[in-house]
Amino acid sequence: MKYNCTDCGEPLEVELISSGIIDADENSLRQSTFERYKSFFPYFKIDNSLTLGVGFTPLLKCKFDDIDIENIYVKNETSNPTWSFKDRGTALGIMHAKELGYKKIGTVSSGNMAVSVAAFGRNANLDTLILVNHELSEEKANPIRVYGARLINVEGDYSELYSESINISEKDNRYFINSDVPFRIEGYKTLAFEVYEQLNGIIPDYIAIPVSAGGHLRGIDKGFRELKASGIVDKVPKLIVCQPEGCHPIVKAFEDGNEKISKFNKTHTIAHATENAFPPSGNQVLRMIKENDGLAVRVTDEEILISQNKLAGKGIFVQPASAMPIAGIKKLLDAGKLKSSDTIVCVVTGSGLKYTKVFDLYNFKEEKCKLEELTKYIINKEVL
Amino acid sequence: MKYNCTDCGEPLEVELISSGIIDADENSLRQSTFERYKSFFPYFKIDNSLTLGVGFTPLLKCKFDDIDIENIYVKNETSNPTWSFKDRGTALGIMHAKELGYKKIGTVSSGNMAVSVAAFGRNANLDTLILVNHELSEEKANPIRVYGARLINVEGDYSELYSESINISEKDNRYFINSDVPFRIEGYKTLAFEVYEQLNGIIPDYIAIPVSAGGHLRGIDKGFRELKASGIVDKVPKLIVCQPEGCHPIVKAFEDGNEKISKFNKTHTIAHATENAFPPSGNQVLRMIKENDGLAVRVTDEEILISQNKLAGKGIFVQPASAMPIAGIKKLLDAGKLKSSDTIVCVVTGSGLKYTKVFDLYNFKEEKCKLEELTKYIINKEVL
Repeated sequence: MKYNCTDCGEPLEVELISSGIIDADENSLRQSTFERYKSFFPYFKIDNSLTLGVGFTPLLKCKFDDIDIENIYVKNETSNPTWSFKDRGTALGIMHAKELGYKKIGTVSSGNMAVSVAAFGRNANLDTLILVNHELSEEKANPIRVYGARLINVEGDYSELYSESINISEKDNRYFINSDVPFRIEGYKTLAFEVYEQLNGIIPDYIAIPVSAGGHLRGIDKGFRELKASGIVDKVPKLIVCQPEGCHPIVKAFEDGNEKISKFNKTHTIAHATENAFPPSGNQVLRMIKENDGLAVRVTDEEILISQNKLAGKGIFVQPASAMPIAGIKKLLDAGKLKSSDTIVCVVTGSGLKYTKVFDLYNFKEEKCKLEELTKYIINKEVL
Repeated sequence: MKYNCTDCGEPLEVELISSGIIDADENSLRQSTFERYKSFFPYFKIDNSLTLGVGFTPLLKCKFDDIDIENIYVKNETSNPTWSFKDRGTALGIMHAKELGYKKIGTVSSGNMAVSVAAFGRNANLDTLILVNHELSEEKANPIRVYGARLINVEGDYSELYSESINISEKDNRYFINSDVPFRIEGYKTLAFEVYEQLNGIIPDYIAIPVSAGGHLRGIDKGFRELKASGIVDKVPKLIVCQPEGCHPIVKAFEDGNEKISKFNKTHTIAHATENAFPPSGNQVLRMIKENDGLAVRVTDEEILISQNKLAGKGIFVQPASAMPIAGIKKLLDAGKLKSSDTIVCVVTGSGLKYTKVFDLYNFKEEKCKLEELTKYIINKEVL
């Protein structure tokens, strides 16, 4: 196939053969997800300039050869401004901080949340402070630093650092948008509203979510519950909590039939984004899945890697933690806890580019040849 | 600020105080950018399952302290499925290949295009071949490989490899979606249509674009020209070609008043994504900016870094090549070639996560302290 002019050698182009039409409705490409669903955020006026275009992420239907479920949808949160789900919550948290008159914000995190708060905080012209554990690698610190927020490596116990941030918050008049603050949770509701619209009003049977601190799941569930409370839908999806084998405090409490979660000892997983040994919203999540007839599943690192690769084969490259819903629903289907006829939304939370060290675990085979051998290599399928 | 229940210690949540409303119009969250503008793609039926949710990227208004232009908008292409602009062109190229009955596709690239073709090709169930130069680092190869496409490192001259791909195309019945194929260019038109809608029908005075092979600029300009030809708008934006000092064949021909571009010798730039010494669409781009009363500007690596950091301060972290439009319009304003009253759209083409080695050039200052010292460090502003 040649696409160059046979006279001048330059590339050709397609001709417009008839006039085009744009039938633009009033709002769709100019409103933010918070504006679109503003009646669910009645407490203050949405400031579009603080949202960075968050949300309206794709919902993609995927069919996997080894998972006999016809209606699997992937909600791809890697298309957000800092390429993770955190941005929805950060955006609303920032709006709340501005509304209350704060000039300073902060967060305690070393992952997606740190990057997200750095980006949104600096865009909002706020003094932005990111507190991280002193063991943070440069690979993770630099993408936080580039936004221009102040990053401090703090030597000491990580959960104490979290408590200390609350003290600093009061003394320094600084709003800490940590993982479980109510207005961060509120931001995650938008995902539920988008799924409702993208599925044309059908409420899925299940929604499978990687769970770390628990705030994301709480926000998504709250969104669906508010749709129901508003009389827009008559049911909510059941929740599927997905955690890694190497750190599954909520799944463990669910399996053991406990009322409360316990701190998980000796965490070890490639799904670092969900390596939270004692999730602050853990008990709430536990109660929610019990009330909601939900499920909880733990997946191994190997299952995570396989699912990461399967999702990539559908064009969606996610960080390891984000592959857990696909691994989880396969496991639950094989165990007879899901049906082939169930409609399931899997939330994938962060971009694969966030954690490329995982490639060390892939055994990619290198193929190499000389230019003059390329034709026979490809066309004659010779093995060099 | 504390957000936990004073009784049980668990995180609080916001209560819905009134019913919410969703006023969903028929299409907006369920159609792809190609469906929305389908009258501009009359040659075949749009297959939504091949688009991966490409497009509908944010257009963000940004004000920079040192650039006295009120109306600067950034079109953030890093929100695409593989986090670069290439996805728009790849999506339509794949649709064309399927329409023609091809079972096999390929591309010659080592950057954003390779990743994009790997993702979309595999999602479309096509035998997908990526040919790269043998000097490709693992850092760049692995994000291509993860999608499961076949990647071959070819030893030999890179421009000869390009020609060889055309030969292979014919013999192997394989559609090569290279940088200048007409249906890739067509895909880029969608950016123009989105900008038109996002600016509420206002056509910007200028659109500034990083230019490598030239296909992206051609597609964007074609989109605006088709809006005009269809009677929807009465003018098109003037084009601003942005290239790095270390590889600016089109800018050079423009400055020298030449009719044709020449191959650029000894390229060297941090804007690797635009390091194309002899762009295949270079002559076309040159003619287009002359006809369109456009501009061409070259920027140094230092200016690129500064602009990358400035964009990050607005929450937008881009790869170095994508920072060139901001660097370029500052230079053109300072040179009196732009006015403060001009409305300018800057297209940022790829995510900063694509090229994190650039951090070696930043002199980030590390801040470190012990947990027990944190309060006095932050609140008393003591320097440790």
